[in-house]
Amino acid sequence: MKLLEDAILEKGTILEGNVLKVDNFLNHQIDPALMKALGDEFAREFADKGITKILTVETSGIAPAVFAGLELGVPVVFGRKNKSLTLQDNMFTTSVYSYTKQTSSDISISKDFLSPTDHVLLIDDFLANGQAISGLLSICKSAGASVAGIGIVIEKSFQKGRRIVEETGIPILSLARIKSLDENGLVFIDEEGQ
Amino acid sequence: MKLLEDAILEKGTILEGNVLKVDNFLNHQIDPALMKALGDEFAREFADKGITKILTVETSGIAPAVFAGLELGVPVVFGRKNKSLTLQDNMFTTSVYSYTKQTSSDISISKDFLSPTDHVLLIDDFLANGQAISGLLSICKSAGASVAGIGIVIEKSFQKGRRIVEETGIPILSLARIKSLDENGLVFIDEEGQ
Repeated sequence: MKLLEDAILEKGTILEGNVLKVDNFLNHQIDPALMKALGDEFAREFADKGITKILTVETSGIAPAVFAGLELGVPVVFGRKNKSLTLQDNMFTTSVYSYTKQTSSDISISKDFLSPTDHVLLIDDFLANGQAISGLLSICKSAGASVAGIGIVIEKSFQKGRRIVEETGIPILSLARIKSLDENGLVFIDEEGQ
Repeated sequence: MKLLEDAILEKGTILEGNVLKVDNFLNHQIDPALMKALGDEFAREFADKGITKILTVETSGIAPAVFAGLELGVPVVFGRKNKSLTLQDNMFTTSVYSYTKQTSSDISISKDFLSPTDHVLLIDDFLANGQAISGLLSICKSAGASVAGIGIVIEKSFQKGRRIVEETGIPILSLARIKSLDENGLVFIDEEGQ
């Protein structure tokens, strides 16, 4: 998606350790018009899939998810992140390891908001090692809910998350796919997947 | 706002200790169409105030804030909540006490995203004791930014937050104002302020 790739090139910065920082339009300051464009794109892609609910994780997945939810006419549920080992009543909970923070935390979703009749679209801001998406998939499995698709804003295609998702066979749309990211800059995968 | 009051009456539940739970459309599961209606209402109220930026706090303020931001054509910045005493580089940070959780946490906003040229609209999901809004006001003061208005989704008018805000003289719009909340139910303040 050109609009997003342009925003990443113009506004993103590459930090030490090849971390992409997009705090100025996605992860801290949010550009609402861009978020609407992202959400609309997810909704277009998954419009005919019979989606009943969108699942995301707090915090940065929420903005694109609510715009997609508005277009698809379905509610958005965001997983809450907690320190592990908190008592969780009436919750589906899964442990997620963060490579960036080098700690585990829990993602929890109330049993009131996910059921076997749900056909879910997962949305998240980043796909890198696939930990958050794997956690959401695990929660959907616990709930007996089926997963119709996965929508990612920025995919670091050189990390293992993409492969993990592909092995599930679940359709995925990543709006920007980064092939490489280092001190020399950032290269996107083109429309032919190269 | 009738649409919101109806949602609170139909979908909200009153928990022990007179806590209002609105997890099914605002605080965990999000109703995107309702969030758009709330955001549009904030945008209408503050349309001619020269707003340059919306400030909110993660997590539940984000959805109504992005819709308001879309309408007003301004970015949204969400304050991050952290355990206190974390080292915060390049951040405006303030400590906020949660009466519900009985702990203090920090709200932080990057200095990159708030400056003396900003004229800010603060948006949050709840106004009760006014701790979060006071924290955002304190951050705006540190940044030298002026505050044009405050938009609240649900105000517990019987707690001290409303009075704290009124004493600042900053215009406030609360879309639902709860006069009382107990085992007998919930009563809203009507349009005449009674």
